Amino acid sequence: MANIKENVIRAKDAATVLSAVSTSVKDKALEAMADALDNFRKEVISANAEDMIAAERMRAAGELTDPMVKRLRVNDEKIDGMMDGIRDVRKLKDPIGETMSAMELDDGLTLYQVRCPIGLIGVIFESRPDVVPQIMALCLKSGNAVAFKGGKEAAGTNRALFDILSKAAYAAGIPEGSFCLMETREDVSAILGMDGLIDLLIPRGSNEFVRYIQENTKIPVLGHSAGICHVYVDADADIDVAVNVTLDSKIQYPAVCNAVETLLVNVRIADEFIPRMTDIFIRNGVEVRADASAMKLAGTHVKEAKDSDWDEEYNDLVISMRTVDSLDEAVDFINKHGSKHTDAIITRNKDNALRFANFVDSSSVMVNASTRFSDGYRYGKGAEVGISTNKIHSRGPVGMEGLTIYKYVLTGEGHVVKDYAGKDAKRYTHRTLDKEFKL
Amino acid sequence: MANIKENVIRAKDAATVLSAVSTSVKDKALEAMADALDNFRKEVISANAEDMIAAERMRAAGELTDPMVKRLRVNDEKIDGMMDGIRDVRKLKDPIGETMSAMELDDGLTLYQVRCPIGLIGVIFESRPDVVPQIMALCLKSGNAVAFKGGKEAAGTNRALFDILSKAAYAAGIPEGSFCLMETREDVSAILGMDGLIDLLIPRGSNEFVRYIQENTKIPVLGHSAGICHVYVDADADIDVAVNVTLDSKIQYPAVCNAVETLLVNVRIADEFIPRMTDIFIRNGVEVRADASAMKLAGTHVKEAKDSDWDEEYNDLVISMRTVDSLDEAVDFINKHGSKHTDAIITRNKDNALRFANFVDSSSVMVNASTRFSDGYRYGKGAEVGISTNKIHSRGPVGMEGLTIYKYVLTGEGHVVKDYAGKDAKRYTHRTLDKEFKL
Repeated sequence: MANIKENVIRAKDAATVLSAVSTSVKDKALEAMADALDNFRKEVISANAEDMIAAERMRAAGELTDPMVKRLRVNDEKIDGMMDGIRDVRKLKDPIGETMSAMELDDGLTLYQVRCPIGLIGVIFESRPDVVPQIMALCLKSGNAVAFKGGKEAAGTNRALFDILSKAAYAAGIPEGSFCLMETREDVSAILGMDGLIDLLIPRGSNEFVRYIQENTKIPVLGHSAGICHVYVDADADIDVAVNVTLDSKIQYPAVCNAVETLLVNVRIADEFIPRMTDIFIRNGVEVRADASAMKLAGTHVKEAKDSDWDEEYNDLVISMRTVDSLDEAVDFINKHGSKHTDAIITRNKDNALRFANFVDSSSVMVNASTRFSDGYRYGKGAEVGISTNKIHSRGPVGMEGLTIYKYVLTGEGHVVKDYAGKDAKRYTHRTLDKEFKL
Repeated sequence: MANIKENVIRAKDAATVLSAVSTSVKDKALEAMADALDNFRKEVISANAEDMIAAERMRAAGELTDPMVKRLRVNDEKIDGMMDGIRDVRKLKDPIGETMSAMELDDGLTLYQVRCPIGLIGVIFESRPDVVPQIMALCLKSGNAVAFKGGKEAAGTNRALFDILSKAAYAAGIPEGSFCLMETREDVSAILGMDGLIDLLIPRGSNEFVRYIQENTKIPVLGHSAGICHVYVDADADIDVAVNVTLDSKIQYPAVCNAVETLLVNVRIADEFIPRMTDIFIRNGVEVRADASAMKLAGTHVKEAKDSDWDEEYNDLVISMRTVDSLDEAVDFINKHGSKHTDAIITRNKDNALRFANFVDSSSVMVNASTRFSDGYRYGKGAEVGISTNKIHSRGPVGMEGLTIYKYVLTGEGHVVKDYAGKDAKRYTHRTLDKEFKL
């Protein structure tokens, strides 16, 4: 235990130095990390083979599911993917040091708002070892230190990746101790209690896992525990668009958080839309669960929805469907049953689209586009830290900017507040400047 | 209890509508609120008189201090100040609806990042009733609903202000229920537990009060519980600047969070600086507590500092002082003993100033300027929500922008993700646009 805390304190100290490491050193380190992965493929794959033996045993005993075992496996192709990921991050613009605003407060007294790293990021993740290179690269480029805790199923793989990558980074000039890896079960609760040291927690795993983290720490958590997304088909929808977008939102990749789970259909278009949509769902293997009103139009191939269906994330080829009398009813329903993640409206009516975009309280609102677009890569962020349903700091798909904050630097020439108070007080000029931070 | 929760849920619902109220309606409401305060001065002052009777009794019994009683009193001058404050907020630019970024993802598929309110803000404050008009105005202009809980000493004054202001706002078109006031002691713990409803908490009061709030809620808290600020006098300091800035940082208003508490002096300038500074401190009634090394130079008029002095916020005419061997020692000391609020360096050496600005992990870093400048008004924010020492969302003096977040709105023409996957996948253009959000 003492050892864990020591490592985290060391990472916190390293974070201070790392915060001011130059872009060229960081980029060199990222390149070295990608190269090291290439050079030490064998080591990673053989460490992974050990993990896989244990994992296969756990699958046989019913303790791991097939997809979990699949996510655990690392082969040459996955290593190629990790290397590409690191190089993609290298190509991203370094956000640190950017002057976000500058203002003259008075002659010779200038206020700069300068982008800087958050500090020490904690990452707790389940079995996918790809998280290690991805988050390590993003944190390094954004000047943050990082403390990892992975799942025990991937312990050997994580350790191999971590050792190879951190060694390469340190050799390239990144401060020693900037990365730390924790490996025991006790480490999770240790991390959750480190609210004086860790500035931001990023959990990666199942909804239950994320919810557990959110509920058991005082550290700010960036993420989302559920993705209950809606498509609302407005009375003024183009039916072809509605069918295509809804189908894509459901079946393009049903296991993910931005897939649609509930379909709301305006009664004025339900006659035409529901039978056609239901037919297409059935042909695509989607189970439909409908309320009484939608059922009348959908025919006998659909199931009756239970109350619990309106709050369920299926992550599967299942969709719940109901009619609504109005756009406002749809908005209320979404704000009540959704998870503030991603919700779509299909309409040709611009006023309705605007009303929906204004009043649906979600991180992403889609107008005539699939819910599946809400993703860091598709949003042009180059790499994704996560998708956040928080209402502060970062919302929606979060890129590297979510790992940054700012500090104010005020440069004067001996300016004192006394001169701006009382009788004959000097006045602030408060003039916005288009000027980079410079001393 | 049921009643409290009902009111908060009502405020949450109102927040959705309020989020899209136009600037002109919000500005009209703010003007009406200022006018109402003017028209109902008597009511406020007579409600306050009742509170003052009880407060004087509590002062006699030693339950309230003189400054607390003073902060509680509302007179015509204070009402004028409240009215000015509301009108200042009216003049601020409405942040809501601003297009923060726009990007073409592909032909006809455009991603907008649009600034929006956070939702429902919780405000818990001690006795100063000025908080009610100030926060109400800031929340209204930024489209947020707000749930207040004030101290019991000011209950009558708070209620009078709240009723007058909310009535005026509702009459001007602000959704009914956007503001709610809670009055019993049980309400505090009720608020702290409302992490599903309240999106951000702003505590206003003593350090202990803020710390209590931070430690007893899962709702994000915007604020700071301590202001242990430092001035570091570098070896290359201009002595006159060092003396003036240090004195201003200490005595211009010693009771506030951005006053300096600890003075660090580089040994290479200590001989010259410490005797002169100490003399000036003593003449200005400042008690100096020094470490052994500084004491040798400071003379007999100073006290010996105890270990606890390096972590203490005096909020008074007291300062602790010590020598350091280097800039790096000063930085380490500040990062260890400071509160990440505001710290200053006095130097003519630009490299040293930059090193200090980079490595001191505080929300404001001052170079040759008084720590007392770190304040929303002085930073040109027009009004201050608070000063935050958080590492996410908002840091340092926070203006209205701290009450806002963004949502992504993606507008398409029936775009589906399927077309961007697999063989013959369409490619994203990811072209940054200089374009306002429009449907």
